[in-house]
Amino acid sequence: MPLWNVFHPAGAFSREDKELLAARITELYNPLPKFYVGVVFQEVAEDCFYVGGRGPVGNFVRIWVDHIARTMPTAEIRKRFIGMCNEVLTPFTTGRGLDWEFHIDETAFDLWSINGLAPPLPNSDEEKRWREANRALPAQAA
Amino acid sequence: MPLWNVFHPAGAFSREDKELLAARITELYNPLPKFYVGVVFQEVAEDCFYVGGRGPVGNFVRIWVDHIARTMPTAEIRKRFIGMCNEVLTPFTTGRGLDWEFHIDETAFDLWSINGLAPPLPNSDEEKRWREANRALPAQAA
Amino acid sequence: MPLWNVFHPAGAFSREDKELLAARITELYNPLPKFYVGVVFQEVAEDCFYVGGRGPVGNFVRIWVDHIARTMPTAEIRKRFIGMCNEVLTPFTTGRGLDWEFHIDETAFDLWSINGLAPPLPNSDEEKRWREANRALPAQAA
Repeated sequence: MPLWNVFHPAGAFSREDKELLAARITELYNPLPKFYVGVVFQEVAEDCFYVGGRGPVGNFVRIWVDHIARTMPTAEIRKRFIGMCNEVLTPFTTGRGLDWEFHIDETAFDLWSINGLAPPLPNSDEEKRWREANRALPAQAA
Repeated sequence: MPLWNVFHPAGAFSREDKELLAARITELYNPLPKFYVGVVFQEVAEDCFYVGGRGPVGNFVRIWVDHIARTMPTAEIRKRFIGMCNEVLTPFTTGRGLDWEFHIDETAFDLWSINGLAPPLPNSDEEKRWREANRALPAQAA
Repeated sequence: MPLWNVFHPAGAFSREDKELLAARITELYNPLPKFYVGVVFQEVAEDCFYVGGRGPVGNFVRIWVDHIARTMPTAEIRKRFIGMCNEVLTPFTTGRGLDWEFHIDETAFDLWSINGLAPPLPNSDEEKRWREANRALPAQAA
């Protein structure tokens, strides 16, 4: 959680771009444990990418995201978060003449596993421990 | 919205096939704005595609779709839409000796953004404006 | 249903590994029809894979799964199933020094189609018939 999937045209992002964008995306989720945030870039060949039923497009970035650790509970929080995503993404897309679209799905907290361990409940002391270690930890003996 | 992801064997579809299939898929969503409809073709190498736990398969097309702009409200509407999808897909799959499967997920309308803009509500005048322009438009001053 | 998507670093899995892992995943769903279970392996180049906003990672396996045919109804069943997945995945990941994460989404049964046919209801006689044939069958005349 979250998993960001970025479909992009060949050559749209350099390695430095990808590193920077992944870092910016990770900041969006602070104070979640940083290692919760995964970003996969997938280059799409021009003849494999279609928008609106016209010919193939070479200037489009399509992002889909799965959220697991948190469900955003109110319309205001959801709107604010989308606004924050827009801020992060705009320089990498609009700012370079690329059209773009993203959407987020929210999936079940209890159907999720990291290194074989069940992630701790949101805002728990155990989650804080994972955040500080920045990796999955076995449960401590009581 | 919608985002169609088409996993297919190498060489299953020519560029003309992809263009035609993307156009047919787009028609399924009329009268939504055409540019809402995205299709990504992803070639899967034969040793990367497994069905039923047997050896790798070379004649299988697997499609997954996320719907965002609309939730289909009744069993009848849902069944009819799946039937329409089947009609579009059959000539590109069964008609060529390919097995195939698809499923659709429905995700939240308010966690969606196009070019940094919040898409207008379904069937609104604003959506009509987007449809006619066939692109995302900033909200008009009141 | 289910669709497993396995993002993995180049060279992490041999063809034999993929066959074995796909077979093990398929066993998780017994007694569902075996051909319901699809697994797609997607190699991710090192500079395309980011976790936690640090530099690119070369030792991470990220799996996302869509479940369609069944919704797991109780916390206990869900926990047990995740445990079974962990058992299957651990030798292919932790056992090789790879970090890993997976999550499962559950999508709607009625927005699903195989070879143009609507899959039979869970635990129906018709599903048994599909299981025995291990393929999609047209409905029988009454």
